[in-house]
Amino acid sequence: MTIYELGETEIVSQIVQRLDIEFEDCAIIDFTDTEYLVVTTDMFHRETDFPVEMSAWQIGWMCAAATISDIAAMGAHPLGMLVSMGLPDIESAFVYSMIEGMDACVHRCGTKIIGGDTDSHQELTICGTAIGRVSKDMILRRKGASAGDLVCVTGSPGMAGAGMAALRKGLTEQEIRDSVAVKKFFEPIPRIEEGIALAESGAVTSMMDNSDGLALSLYQLAEVNGCGFAIRAESLPMPPETDDGSLDLALYTGGDFELLFTVMPDRLGDAMDACELTVIGEVTRKGVFLEGDTAKEIERKGYRSLVC
Amino acid sequence: MTIYELGETEIVSQIVQRLDIEFEDCAIIDFTDTEYLVVTTDMFHRETDFPVEMSAWQIGWMCAAATISDIAAMGAHPLGMLVSMGLPDIESAFVYSMIEGMDACVHRCGTKIIGGDTDSHQELTICGTAIGRVSKDMILRRKGASAGDLVCVTGSPGMAGAGMAALRKGLTEQEIRDSVAVKKFFEPIPRIEEGIALAESGAVTSMMDNSDGLALSLYQLAEVNGCGFAIRAESLPMPPETDDGSLDLALYTGGDFELLFTVMPDRLGDAMDACELTVIGEVTRKGVFLEGDTAKEIERKGYRSLVC
Repeated sequence: MTIYELGETEIVSQIVQRLDIEFEDCAIIDFTDTEYLVVTTDMFHRETDFPVEMSAWQIGWMCAAATISDIAAMGAHPLGMLVSMGLPDIESAFVYSMIEGMDACVHRCGTKIIGGDTDSHQELTICGTAIGRVSKDMILRRKGASAGDLVCVTGSPGMAGAGMAALRKGLTEQEIRDSVAVKKFFEPIPRIEEGIALAESGAVTSMMDNSDGLALSLYQLAEVNGCGFAIRAESLPMPPETDDGSLDLALYTGGDFELLFTVMPDRLGDAMDACELTVIGEVTRKGVFLEGDTAKEIERKGYRSLVC
Repeated sequence: MTIYELGETEIVSQIVQRLDIEFEDCAIIDFTDTEYLVVTTDMFHRETDFPVEMSAWQIGWMCAAATISDIAAMGAHPLGMLVSMGLPDIESAFVYSMIEGMDACVHRCGTKIIGGDTDSHQELTICGTAIGRVSKDMILRRKGASAGDLVCVTGSPGMAGAGMAALRKGLTEQEIRDSVAVKKFFEPIPRIEEGIALAESGAVTSMMDNSDGLALSLYQLAEVNGCGFAIRAESLPMPPETDDGSLDLALYTGGDFELLFTVMPDRLGDAMDACELTVIGEVTRKGVFLEGDTAKEIERKGYRSLVC
């Protein structure tokens, strides 16, 4: 059977099983008595990952942001980023601008680009690698949520999806520049400070980033923890600039790079002291439901699935 | 100007300058008082990096070997490998076999695959990331060679090139299986043990891997160290299965993943206790020359250039 027939989720699940890899945002290496090293890698392609409206600088920024977001999701401090590039015969100014965007993002996250590799390739292909460190008693994993914990997010899930929807309507260049959603979509800010503060708060029981979309991320957390979720529709912070369908955007579109985490109910104050957050629901025993006037099951669909 | 007009070497040099990156086989992170972390990333594409005669298992092995070779070149202990894959719609068995080859190679090097990413892509694209650790007083860098030091290699430079030349002659499947050069080309063994032993010997002043070919690697070492090299033609271990042109293969073809290093002349015995090596020449003040009946300058050409 071909891999497209099997589907990416099945392929990844097979590989992860064969290699006995832990399903986390980053690979975790036991480095010293007190600290873990966390490492993540992400691959991007020009046509599938970057809307045509994005500038070279923004392509660089987004690659760095998406890669470093996985470091944030473990509550870790970034140590550096490496970038491999498969380059078609484009203007050198495009490549330098991309590198500048990448560099700006990693500096915003308190780290820098420390190495990489270049190669020639038909389609622009970028592979980012980020490394981080985190105290063993601070690390936040996907596993750890218990029934009764509160479900929280940073930012507005669906913001990048709202940006994408706005672009599809056909914006002028000025409208693109003025759109908050497009800006958040094109230049997401990895939640490094929030991740570290949440880790230090001691209030968080599980965490991941929502880059695959909220619904898929909830299903991933549910699977790892053997739990369910009851999400309150009216509590979801809605992305701006959307008329209707914003609930669908919040649930089923990816590319946000916000944090999705669970908090012990009696420690919510500590989590709120750590960063701005919204409580969107509660950990239950089974099923992933949206509670409004009536409860309905959230569909298991989203953006894409990553090993880490 | 486009990047193909400028050339990969110039692009890489520009990026390295702009980002103030050290020109080493790996990025080096100062992690604890006593240890460095070393990290490397390498990108590969189906058409440009893997001969059609290679099996899926061998493609996986070679990606892992090429990536981990950079860890060996620093004298470091590997801690793990991550792999990102851009996958076309191929048979799932092909992907699993590739992963098995990769896994076999990393196990051979005493480590394992700890994470990765998958994505769909027209051409099979693989990006390997390897992490290692090394004591601060052991690390071997490209910088450190002085005039008078001996130039040494592990294995036979040009072995992969000899394999490639043999394939171009059109071998039968049986001949491919029987060819030592093709085997070394398709399933190179990263010199992890040798790298660690050489680092521990205290005899080595500089080191890198020769994946870009011997000539280009010598020029890279010459540039970093502000030195020259006198290589003795008759001392070069010649690759097997080649009639004529084997000197050209030894100098100008890449893909070997052997170690190229310089040794203090009075410590050669310690280096020889560490691993099998061949002394191929001497560090001089200026110029990269081949000394035979007459001395002639080695050309600055090779396989490709990598940031790290």
